[in-house]
Amino acid sequence: MSSVAVRNIARADAAVVARLAAAGTATAPEAQQRTGLMQPYLRPIYAGAAIAGSAVTVLAQPGDNWMLHVAIELCQPGDIVVVGCASVNQDGMFGELLATSMRARGIAGLVIDAGCRDVRALTEMGFPVWSRAVSAKGTVKATPGSVNVPVVCAGAAVQPGDVIVADDDGVCVVPRLRAAQVADACDARLAKEAATRARLAAGELGLDIYGMRDKLRQAGLVYVDEPGDIA
Amino acid sequence: MSSVAVRNIARADAAVVARLAAAGTATAPEAQQRTGLMQPYLRPIYAGAAIAGSAVTVLAQPGDNWMLHVAIELCQPGDIVVVGCASVNQDGMFGELLATSMRARGIAGLVIDAGCRDVRALTEMGFPVWSRAVSAKGTVKATPGSVNVPVVCAGAAVQPGDVIVADDDGVCVVPRLRAAQVADACDARLAKEAATRARLAAGELGLDIYGMRDKLRQAGLVYVDEPGDIA
Amino acid sequence: MSSVAVRNIARADAAVVARLAAAGTATAPEAQQRTGLMQPYLRPIYAGAAIAGSAVTVLAQPGDNWMLHVAIELCQPGDIVVVGCASVNQDGMFGELLATSMRARGIAGLVIDAGCRDVRALTEMGFPVWSRAVSAKGTVKATPGSVNVPVVCAGAAVQPGDVIVADDDGVCVVPRLRAAQVADACDARLAKEAATRARLAAGELGLDIYGMRDKLRQAGLVYVDEPGDIA
Amino acid sequence: MSSVAVRNIARADAAVVARLAAAGTATAPEAQQRTGLMQPYLRPIYAGAAIAGSAVTVLAQPGDNWMLHVAIELCQPGDIVVVGCASVNQDGMFGELLATSMRARGIAGLVIDAGCRDVRALTEMGFPVWSRAVSAKGTVKATPGSVNVPVVCAGAAVQPGDVIVADDDGVCVVPRLRAAQVADACDARLAKEAATRARLAAGELGLDIYGMRDKLRQAGLVYVDEPGDIA
Amino acid sequence: MSSVAVRNIARADAAVVARLAAAGTATAPEAQQRTGLMQPYLRPIYAGAAIAGSAVTVLAQPGDNWMLHVAIELCQPGDIVVVGCASVNQDGMFGELLATSMRARGIAGLVIDAGCRDVRALTEMGFPVWSRAVSAKGTVKATPGSVNVPVVCAGAAVQPGDVIVADDDGVCVVPRLRAAQVADACDARLAKEAATRARLAAGELGLDIYGMRDKLRQAGLVYVDEPGDIA
Amino acid sequence: MSSVAVRNIARADAAVVARLAAAGTATAPEAQQRTGLMQPYLRPIYAGAAIAGSAVTVLAQPGDNWMLHVAIELCQPGDIVVVGCASVNQDGMFGELLATSMRARGIAGLVIDAGCRDVRALTEMGFPVWSRAVSAKGTVKATPGSVNVPVVCAGAAVQPGDVIVADDDGVCVVPRLRAAQVADACDARLAKEAATRARLAAGELGLDIYGMRDKLRQAGLVYVDEPGDIA
Repeated sequence: MSSVAVRNIARADAAVVARLAAAGTATAPEAQQRTGLMQPYLRPIYAGAAIAGSAVTVLAQPGDNWMLHVAIELCQPGDIVVVGCASVNQDGMFGELLATSMRARGIAGLVIDAGCRDVRALTEMGFPVWSRAVSAKGTVKATPGSVNVPVVCAGAAVQPGDVIVADDDGVCVVPRLRAAQVADACDARLAKEAATRARLAAGELGLDIYGMRDKLRQAGLVYVDEPGDIA
Repeated sequence: MSSVAVRNIARADAAVVARLAAAGTATAPEAQQRTGLMQPYLRPIYAGAAIAGSAVTVLAQPGDNWMLHVAIELCQPGDIVVVGCASVNQDGMFGELLATSMRARGIAGLVIDAGCRDVRALTEMGFPVWSRAVSAKGTVKATPGSVNVPVVCAGAAVQPGDVIVADDDGVCVVPRLRAAQVADACDARLAKEAATRARLAAGELGLDIYGMRDKLRQAGLVYVDEPGDIA
Repeated sequence: MSSVAVRNIARADAAVVARLAAAGTATAPEAQQRTGLMQPYLRPIYAGAAIAGSAVTVLAQPGDNWMLHVAIELCQPGDIVVVGCASVNQDGMFGELLATSMRARGIAGLVIDAGCRDVRALTEMGFPVWSRAVSAKGTVKATPGSVNVPVVCAGAAVQPGDVIVADDDGVCVVPRLRAAQVADACDARLAKEAATRARLAAGELGLDIYGMRDKLRQAGLVYVDEPGDIA
Repeated sequence: MSSVAVRNIARADAAVVARLAAAGTATAPEAQQRTGLMQPYLRPIYAGAAIAGSAVTVLAQPGDNWMLHVAIELCQPGDIVVVGCASVNQDGMFGELLATSMRARGIAGLVIDAGCRDVRALTEMGFPVWSRAVSAKGTVKATPGSVNVPVVCAGAAVQPGDVIVADDDGVCVVPRLRAAQVADACDARLAKEAATRARLAAGELGLDIYGMRDKLRQAGLVYVDEPGDIA
Repeated sequence: MSSVAVRNIARADAAVVARLAAAGTATAPEAQQRTGLMQPYLRPIYAGAAIAGSAVTVLAQPGDNWMLHVAIELCQPGDIVVVGCASVNQDGMFGELLATSMRARGIAGLVIDAGCRDVRALTEMGFPVWSRAVSAKGTVKATPGSVNVPVVCAGAAVQPGDVIVADDDGVCVVPRLRAAQVADACDARLAKEAATRARLAAGELGLDIYGMRDKLRQAGLVYVDEPGDIA
Repeated sequence: MSSVAVRNIARADAAVVARLAAAGTATAPEAQQRTGLMQPYLRPIYAGAAIAGSAVTVLAQPGDNWMLHVAIELCQPGDIVVVGCASVNQDGMFGELLATSMRARGIAGLVIDAGCRDVRALTEMGFPVWSRAVSAKGTVKATPGSVNVPVVCAGAAVQPGDVIVADDDGVCVVPRLRAAQVADACDARLAKEAATRARLAAGELGLDIYGMRDKLRQAGLVYVDEPGDIA
């Protein structure tokens, strides 16, 4: 496994991907036991984007964006490119030119554990990027990495073809083989939350809706009337 | 003081709170000898919110938002919930459902030394939050903390009932018993700044307005004409 | 070189500065061998500003903004004040009053390796600032530093009179004596990029436009058809 | 409360302090519901020191160590000086000369939420310091702070006279009024741990000693024989 | 895959593990294309330990060390426990009591992407730990995680049974199925380095040993005699 | 100034260098108005080393240590190699083999704004390194940088030939042309400190030795007897 690019990967069903996009990062991780979230240092370069797609993964060397060019050719419309870096790096590996190329190929967006530049142009294009930094620091094209191998991106393990869900709250990975099951759990969760939201909006308390009062007492919570009453 | 929730706390006068809101975080700390500011890693989830209110404090365990539910019941309209965490944590302890509940109860906003999620929904609701991270990472409800006990939030000590001032520049704590005095000092400061602003806008220099030239010379500042003139 | 303020510095030609402003931080560093970028922790306080100007440099003590007043008097219209700090500091050394004074003097903006406050007011004024933090923490005026001496700001060495280019991607320094040459290289680069952009938008791949396929093969990249084919 | 130095503070009983020193930071916080720990970025400048003492608190300005001189005069033998900083700062506020003075006065050690220098000399002297950084950056004596007022140090609120416990694991604050009660709880805990340690050393499992097996099953833990058996 | 503990995992051959221990982290990653290194924020709690062993993996909740007890029972002598955390956490999840239990079971060491306490006792015991922090902050036992599932630890993906190599330079993961092949490559590399070391010690230059002079010239490096000769 | 290596640089007088080594980093920056210190994230890989020497500077690409080989040939005995990195990087650019080569050439030590590996071997060799990280992450030799050009290392600007002073407290740069003058100031300062140290050791207070009492009162410090006396 020196430097390799894998041409064909399995992808999740498009309908499942769409349902996960609708669920978003606040729901999808909850539907898989609070797993799969990338670390919160990944931030969108502009607010409001919310996408999901199949991951085409890139393992890049620090300060070297060569493999992004290799990845684009291997993408299908709707894919999301996910870039893990061989060591921590904030250089601006991605900018307007690469986005133009990705847009022309129908790629939905980019998740990169490194820097991004040309953020104004990308915002005007509406090409969404989640990155660990905004940096104009240019990169070289000198050392190959790999495409469509397993990577770690912002603390999350990603297999090529996994479903990426990304929005204003961050980025989440849903393993491809569990995507349909997670989408089902998301739908159930969303339905339940809608009912809870209505009750909360009417002034009911979570303490009562979730039946927490007894559990809190058993866990040792004591109510007192005044600060001076604390034992 | 194991796990305790205090029902009744003293609050500052509403008129004083309103005056502190008007002064904002750029003025209130200056009016109390540059103290009371939380660390700048606390950021608003959207620009433009500017509030003040009495603190209902929460001491939470890392990754556990149970006590937020307890706190809501003990709030009055206009209060601000202030969450300190027992150890550094960025998980998304707060989101749209809790905000819906807080809004229904008239709570003005949240300051949390941990993560926040559902930032798009919260922005649309206009529910202001200052947090150390945006993260969709969900939390458990397993270990109780306390409500309305003294906490440290983002480096500042907060007593229940202290006045919280929060805006685009950050978050400041004004001790309840000194709130009126600080509000007076803010007013005086704002009046003075208005006069100074007019003079600066007209092109006068701070060097002259503040009489700094002599002090600078005494402190050792030397003017030279050209870089080559530096001794 | 104790505490010194230099009155007169050489500046780059205004036309060259304007061309560098048009090139922006994504192009200017590339035109000088990827050098001169300040670290990406410097961020603009609002999106959309894009300026260039001659640096009036300030060496400030931590938590002390005295020298900013000294610097203003020594600026010419169009200058950018660049503040390096004697040690890492995030205090809010700059706010609306100083911005009012700078605006009155025609100063184009501020780059500060410390904190900035009053960000809402500065945004409304349209006075652009790049800072390492937003913080309402006030500062003292007790210990002098220097003006128009060489400084290090966010990891970049800046000489007084160097050209500063700042926009949504960050801040770049172009040495004054090389500014014209860098502007020429920027123009050449922009022309070339326009041609490349059109080809990429039409669906051509960077692999082909830049002739990368042979180089990648020589560097050891191997294509396989399926994940299971990886040796 | 502008700039103030309080001459006389209440201190905890010396015997209680000694018992807390023996318990150390691994036990004392557990004996007070896992509270009172300073953040782990505070590190000892050399390994092996383990002390406890009454806190003489200092609120210092960033880059200014003036108040350390004021504090020394107000200390009694065995006290520990605790320095909170008005904003985040890593400058070397403390070194060999101040340590010589503190040693002459019988001060037991220093806890400082800023930098420390002369670490080799301090190590040779055996004067223990817990700091957030080692830095030779010198400081000024220009702006007064306060001595023996409440401070926040490394995320923990400290009242003058509170007991400070510091060793290789970090620094913990025990409120003065609860010190005797916490020392009792420490002793009980240490006795219990000694018994547990012997059983663990003999090969018994915590699962059995603490009776965790049922609780884990109820909490949902499922055992499977092989990785392939995961549902 | 809710909360699961896998009893039986495949392990690498003991002789291979021993060869990887001898190679150490400076050589093993080089022998697998510079992959597998955990991030350098993981540090040994004392200098000089150098171990290798099969990974028993733990996925832990922040501030909750329950699963460490579950893991111990599933270890064999020589194993290394590797703890990934569901979100970033520095609490002291591991200390002397757990080390006593691990030692009794023959476990070789611990790699934990969280905090460690009792570092003095652990050092005296000679039980090696690599952690992201030293912290006395205690943890709860409230929410189960998993044992022997894939985890991400300090940025590296670890499968149960992978070989962990840890020493003063950090921690490296070698996939179990490639361990023998990597050990072979390590041996070859070490032999080659021994020869190179002798030549370097004799004063030969890397420029000549590695034949770099031509490549550097082709890559554009230009030698000049004096600083003033730079074009 | 693309990629360049300068063969001949001016160096400071050896006797001056030796005097600066004796002064150390706690004194040298004070003798030049608290300037020249590198940021405290640079740490020695082992305690006790204290050196000074002339800087041979290296500008390296992230993850690429090619230029270190170029630099060695251009060093003279006693020189210190100072490596600035084109962007933030923690990879292990330097280890035992390069140290063997440097030792053979008489180089005194290394200061590197990146990572270092083989720390155990380097410690046994007694080859001192100050780095921002310990990391076994290997590097490539693909993109040239420069040798003996001005660099920024850990926040300090370094010219080739400047004097580097490094010890347990960190690293300081003394400009070559001012080295003799700074050495004189160091000697004066050390003499003065020796006298002060004796007085402090005898129990005199800094308040009296430095005559601070009046200045503190003028600056607004107020003494009160009890905490309750604070206005």
